[in-house]
Amino acid sequence: MPTSKKADGSDQYTLPAIHDPATGVYISDSILIAEYLEKTYPDTPQVFPHHTIALQVTFAEAFGNNLGGLANFILPATCTKLNPRSQEYFRRTREKSFGKTMEDIVPKGEAAIAEWAQFRDGLGKVDAWYAKNGGQGPFLLGGTPSWGDIVVASVLIWLRIVWGEESQQWKDISSWNKGRWAAIVEALKKYEYYNPGM
Amino acid sequence: MPTSKKADGSDQYTLPAIHDPATGVYISDSILIAEYLEKTYPDTPQVFPHHTIALQVTFAEAFGNNLGGLANFILPATCTKLNPRSQEYFRRTREKSFGKTMEDIVPKGEAAIAEWAQFRDGLGKVDAWYAKNGGQGPFLLGGTPSWGDIVVASVLIWLRIVWGEESQQWKDISSWNKGRWAAIVEALKKYEYYNPGM
Repeated sequence: MPTSKKADGSDQYTLPAIHDPATGVYISDSILIAEYLEKTYPDTPQVFPHHTIALQVTFAEAFGNNLGGLANFILPATCTKLNPRSQEYFRRTREKSFGKTMEDIVPKGEAAIAEWAQFRDGLGKVDAWYAKNGGQGPFLLGGTPSWGDIVVASVLIWLRIVWGEESQQWKDISSWNKGRWAAIVEALKKYEYYNPGM
Repeated sequence: MPTSKKADGSDQYTLPAIHDPATGVYISDSILIAEYLEKTYPDTPQVFPHHTIALQVTFAEAFGNNLGGLANFILPATCTKLNPRSQEYFRRTREKSFGKTMEDIVPKGEAAIAEWAQFRDGLGKVDAWYAKNGGQGPFLLGGTPSWGDIVVASVLIWLRIVWGEESQQWKDISSWNKGRWAAIVEALKKYEYYNPGM
């Protein structure tokens, strides 16, 4: 049951998506899934504690607006990790939207240095927001993880999986902002589940 | 005691600023003032409840980024309300930064329609964040006012004071997003204090 439409009016199918056999509900779109789970299973840890959902969605959007420079690096790297059928689709659709081949999307030389610095500076702005919590814990709310942290960790884990823990890229990211990014991922590790067979 | 510097390295003096005779402290910059008051007087209502300060500063910045179109209308209108000495300073510094006269900053004709619509659409984006609280109250956290609401209300009250409650501009704003903006100002009215003599 798609929850959104494409520009041409046809159904838009996206991941993640869930089916809850206990209620018969199908939902796509991560924020809608989270809202559903929060409402349906109120006795589990809350991802929007203290009615912070409006602040959380604002943070998630602002975080996304500070990832300039990243896409050109990570999309081509992601492409190489997909299975053949997904890879063909990913390459075809992304090359169409970028107007260049996957290989030409990757920044090179001076452009690579400038765009990687742009990505680092964007995370630096997000770091300044986090820093306002006064070191009360690794998370936006201090010691309590919430939606915004999960959004941040999801992006970071994507990068770590694609580039690998031993890559220069992941070492760079882990070294930025006094290790804030590696610390958030580490603090959420117990919720992390990666199925390479999917 | 200025807390920030100008580009040329000299001290930057800004309002608001406070002096707390109980502790001897001087502070400028609204967020630093709020943090100080919150820490020093913990038994009063909190503006960053539940350790939400990191989310609150993110919201405040994202809100500010959605006020495109507003400055060209409100700055010239504000200029007319200042006392002669402030007006001279305001006009001189703003005309320098805009590179045009106060009278030329005001959008006219088609541009006025387009820029007013841009302002409305920016508030529309902020409305979508607020709407995520599911109508649990007028505020970001539902029934509890917090920093982000105060930032929003401060801008709105500025507009209402400069244009006046009976102006077409304030009537427009009050009519947008099912009255959300007027409702936030109304809900915070007991904290509102305006000294026209200042």
